[in-house]
Amino acid sequence: MPPLSNTVSDGRSRVVIENLTPEIDGGLFPIKRTRGESVTVEADIFTDGHEVISCILLFRREQEKAWREAPMKLLVNDRWAGGFVVPELGRYVYLIAAWVDRFKSWRRDLQKKAEVGEHAELDFLSGALLLEETAARASPGDQKKLAQAIKSFRAKEESLPAKLASALSDELLSLVEAYPDRSLETRYAKELGVVVDREQARFSSWYEMFPRSCAAKPGAHGTFKDCERLLPYVASMGFDTLYLPPIHPIGRTHRKGKNNAITTTANDPGSPWAIGSKEGGHKSIHPQLGTLEDFKKFVRKAESLGLEVALDVAFQCSPDHPYVTEHPQWFRWRPDRTVQFAENPPKKYEDIYPLDFTSDQWRELWQELKSVVEFWLEQGVHVFRVDNPHTKPLPFWQWLIGEIKKDHPEVIFLAEAFTRPKVMYRLAKLGFSQSYSYFAWRNTKAEIAEYFQELTQTEVREYFRPNLWPNTPDILTEYLQFGGRPAFMTRLVLAATLGASYGIYGPAFELLERRPREPGSEEYLDSEKFEIKHWDRESADSLKEFIARVNRIRKENPALQSDWSLRFHEVDNEQIICYTKQTQDLSNVIAVAVNLDPHHVQSGWVKIPADSLQLEAAESYQAHDLLSGARFLWHGAKNYVSLDPQVAPAHILRLRRRVRREQDFDYFM
Amino acid sequence: MPPLSNTVSDGRSRVVIENLTPEIDGGLFPIKRTRGESVTVEADIFTDGHEVISCILLFRREQEKAWREAPMKLLVNDRWAGGFVVPELGRYVYLIAAWVDRFKSWRRDLQKKAEVGEHAELDFLSGALLLEETAARASPGDQKKLAQAIKSFRAKEESLPAKLASALSDELLSLVEAYPDRSLETRYAKELGVVVDREQARFSSWYEMFPRSCAAKPGAHGTFKDCERLLPYVASMGFDTLYLPPIHPIGRTHRKGKNNAITTTANDPGSPWAIGSKEGGHKSIHPQLGTLEDFKKFVRKAESLGLEVALDVAFQCSPDHPYVTEHPQWFRWRPDRTVQFAENPPKKYEDIYPLDFTSDQWRELWQELKSVVEFWLEQGVHVFRVDNPHTKPLPFWQWLIGEIKKDHPEVIFLAEAFTRPKVMYRLAKLGFSQSYSYFAWRNTKAEIAEYFQELTQTEVREYFRPNLWPNTPDILTEYLQFGGRPAFMTRLVLAATLGASYGIYGPAFELLERRPREPGSEEYLDSEKFEIKHWDRESADSLKEFIARVNRIRKENPALQSDWSLRFHEVDNEQIICYTKQTQDLSNVIAVAVNLDPHHVQSGWVKIPADSLQLEAAESYQAHDLLSGARFLWHGAKNYVSLDPQVAPAHILRLRRRVRREQDFDYFM
Repeated sequence: MPPLSNTVSDGRSRVVIENLTPEIDGGLFPIKRTRGESVTVEADIFTDGHEVISCILLFRREQEKAWREAPMKLLVNDRWAGGFVVPELGRYVYLIAAWVDRFKSWRRDLQKKAEVGEHAELDFLSGALLLEETAARASPGDQKKLAQAIKSFRAKEESLPAKLASALSDELLSLVEAYPDRSLETRYAKELGVVVDREQARFSSWYEMFPRSCAAKPGAHGTFKDCERLLPYVASMGFDTLYLPPIHPIGRTHRKGKNNAITTTANDPGSPWAIGSKEGGHKSIHPQLGTLEDFKKFVRKAESLGLEVALDVAFQCSPDHPYVTEHPQWFRWRPDRTVQFAENPPKKYEDIYPLDFTSDQWRELWQELKSVVEFWLEQGVHVFRVDNPHTKPLPFWQWLIGEIKKDHPEVIFLAEAFTRPKVMYRLAKLGFSQSYSYFAWRNTKAEIAEYFQELTQTEVREYFRPNLWPNTPDILTEYLQFGGRPAFMTRLVLAATLGASYGIYGPAFELLERRPREPGSEEYLDSEKFEIKHWDRESADSLKEFIARVNRIRKENPALQSDWSLRFHEVDNEQIICYTKQTQDLSNVIAVAVNLDPHHVQSGWVKIPADSLQLEAAESYQAHDLLSGARFLWHGAKNYVSLDPQVAPAHILRLRRRVRREQDFDYFM
Repeated sequence: MPPLSNTVSDGRSRVVIENLTPEIDGGLFPIKRTRGESVTVEADIFTDGHEVISCILLFRREQEKAWREAPMKLLVNDRWAGGFVVPELGRYVYLIAAWVDRFKSWRRDLQKKAEVGEHAELDFLSGALLLEETAARASPGDQKKLAQAIKSFRAKEESLPAKLASALSDELLSLVEAYPDRSLETRYAKELGVVVDREQARFSSWYEMFPRSCAAKPGAHGTFKDCERLLPYVASMGFDTLYLPPIHPIGRTHRKGKNNAITTTANDPGSPWAIGSKEGGHKSIHPQLGTLEDFKKFVRKAESLGLEVALDVAFQCSPDHPYVTEHPQWFRWRPDRTVQFAENPPKKYEDIYPLDFTSDQWRELWQELKSVVEFWLEQGVHVFRVDNPHTKPLPFWQWLIGEIKKDHPEVIFLAEAFTRPKVMYRLAKLGFSQSYSYFAWRNTKAEIAEYFQELTQTEVREYFRPNLWPNTPDILTEYLQFGGRPAFMTRLVLAATLGASYGIYGPAFELLERRPREPGSEEYLDSEKFEIKHWDRESADSLKEFIARVNRIRKENPALQSDWSLRFHEVDNEQIICYTKQTQDLSNVIAVAVNLDPHHVQSGWVKIPADSLQLEAAESYQAHDLLSGARFLWHGAKNYVSLDPQVAPAHILRLRRRVRREQDFDYFM
């Protein structure tokens, strides 16, 4: 006979599995989880006719051969759901298998017939045949049990009611369910991936610090030894990740001066992102900071205080980088035999030579850049903040991150991609563990709610983990410039509670540094990017204690350690934003109310669906402000808040179900 | 060096193409169009950095080798769009290619530099290199033109302004655009399909008729000759497709009597869906209807009147079907050596044996069923209404329709799948040209609007073409039972204007047959499924003239011949529904207002966004009721309608922009 169409391998595999979630871009990219989290998989699963189907979820670690199985349940409208937990770092894969279940179909039909008294001996004879088929797949012990059932189904002397009871028994169902006929099962055509990271990929508190500004003496170039001295200061604020801008030798040629000036004096240290000089390139340390040994000692000391050091990956070169002479083919040469510097006309960056990823030598370049990451891994660094990844080829990052994480699944890559949304999301899909976000420019209630709903309530959350920064060395927002101390507090609370991961660029942040280079600019005046700063870390005005309190609240409240439960709630005042986060078991419920107006007291009624949080809204419940320590008795869905920005522009409220009442006293009854 | 990851074939292919639409289930299924329609393709397309990219849409007929190209334009937010027309029946495929365009990048940067006066000789030397590369790909004639440009770019004596003018000229751009460097282009990884059907797949008016009820003499068994006599009657109502329930020999064993009775008299003709007797099976004609020659003559006669005959494909057998003895392996046998009849406990259909698609002989069965369709194709039938496709394996239909349409792309398959939504849509995806829908049970304004928005404004429209039936031999809705003549008119207008394809089961419909078998039942009393009926087609109460008018309106107004433009509009009366359809060029705009209450006059203000329909709402425009002939002068967005169900429960208004005013008279000035 003529061959059947390619689409039909066995026309008897009748079950359809479609619209499976989560599945990113048709299975091209994995979803992301952290260790111990679960993956809920759903799909539309059905077959022709009205036979009963069985579905299971199959999953395994990628390097394992054998599939593990998890049950799936029918929800509604042919949608099924199941889940599994990912306890190990690395990669998992999953898919669904489903088949027409002839035993369950027979059992369901028998039950329906029995309800109208139309079951007959013939039905049990049909059932006996199915049990015989099952027995052929069963263990010897279960074969015996099945033989007994078969015998009784066939026994003329056995009564119909007795046969029926046995046929519909849970025991028989469990027995047969252990040996399903899956010969004609449908398997979902794609194996879908999960990348499992460590917890820090989901929950982290970052602090950015320029090591050269850490000297005790004003004007002196800081060293890693100086940095060691400051570690207790950073640790006392409760951060867990300490990110350093590039620590490599800085180029001389076209070095930038103060405030990005094109002329320099001998003392100008240059931008740390102009990497490479005769002292070395991406695998070297700027001599004024110390030695590689100093750096490693500093990393270990930080670790002992609960701080993990994150390095900057900035794949670009100063004109003095050794690559320029050793690998001229990695740069784009102009007809005048000079290297094309970075530019985005009319802007020019003469101190930066971009690498040319499209030369014939691209494979060698990729390998070299991979060896840079590997070098720092060997020095004990496992977190990397990647500078402008969107200006290097997207396939390069997919390859690099994939290669590195094969042997080092613990590594975290943070993408600094302040670019268009599609590019930002693509970088997340292709492997970045976290990403800077548009948070800095979301200031009004509507802007914040819309953006964070997109990040936490759509498919985006499966692959994009936002890291929220109220400031960076490149970003001093107008909100911070004009809002004074309350604005810094507001943006800190928002970053730290909207995002399970957030970071600040300090000490500029805690010391409320807010002078722009010029009106309308988001650049800092006298930016630390171009000069050594001396910070008064003990300033009375410092936010360090407020920050420490917020970070302690984050550590003590698991609700704030992930993003998916975020929900916004109605407030009858446009200047107050209110949202909740909770753990899945509702043992930890946090409500946050923030006054977005840094100038005036704002008050309003917040409307939280207490019932859905199992707070028994009909009774009173407790709203405990973890920032101020105050405890409010709340009642029902609508409650009043009043926030004075001069005192504290926010409540971070732990909502607790149990409020003591008179009945709770021993003497009451 | 170690091999790169599989994901990277050439790491220099830097453009990303994602989120392409339309793409059904990751490219598993084709979209549908009819001849001459267009396909609009969109995708998110971007690359790293800020170089300029070029994108083109590639398409071809499936059997052709060479791709054709259509331009794509950037919309917004990295989204690009392009389109192509499909003039031929059969299958097309399409995808997108995109690449970093170095010439356009250079040109854009040059322009930006020139704006601030920073362009220099060096820029033109770089440009000359790009032109040299282009010349290597160009035709001899264009090579000369390029050589001239290169020479002037390099000429020391040529002025900068002259070079700039030449570099930014449209001529040079067109010249270079003809020879793009696509060596590192990204091609979308999948070829996506389009099935192109003939126009009837999109726009059709069906009439269902039992041939055995066509005899002139009451009680006599109708023949194809009788049917011929009735063709002018059907044609006069304006239908284009005449669908006959099964015309094959009807089984005797367990034949059903009047009103589905399990006992019969000798005169009971049985259900036409109980196919097969000693006179033959699916390739035979019920002897009382006539011969195969009679049938073919009838088909030709119908064609001459503009009526295409559609046959029923009901893949099931009566116990007397020749297959039962010739191919016992195609049926499921019970332990008592009887064949399992159709049942859905506690319901039993003893006169129907389902085919067993899961036996070892499934391939032979599939081939035989395909030969059934081929047999009727040979007799001149090209439209098939498929009975209960959802009770046969879904892969079977995908294979069958695919195989048949390879050689017969003109064939139309209508799925009678009154089943769950996911199954209904899957049947459409896998190949059915049209499908019955839930229209019969959508009666209120909200129900209708919600359902038809799903069908016409979501991805569903790419593969699912609804066919709207207010009644069928199985469905007499409560709305028709209780609403009298106005209800029939209302449902007819809704079916014929909401749907480009619709059908009625006649003459029950036009003769207002509305007696249910029992209260609460949707079955007809004395259903034609079980007996021969004699219809008084000349009844004074018949809707035939109303139907003829509605079908003429459909034929004369292309807006009503497709579904995608459907939009619902606000009316301040819940009993009045209002919607518009229009052609793309707005040359034909139809507004429909229907009173859903069959008992009372209903009035209200309808709000149509006249401006978006280019009706110049500030002026008056004409609303010409094509049903009554009345012409209203409408003005602005809100206009008044009043609909008396006893007269006409609907307006079908053609909206026309030009209304004569005094200025239009020669004498006015």
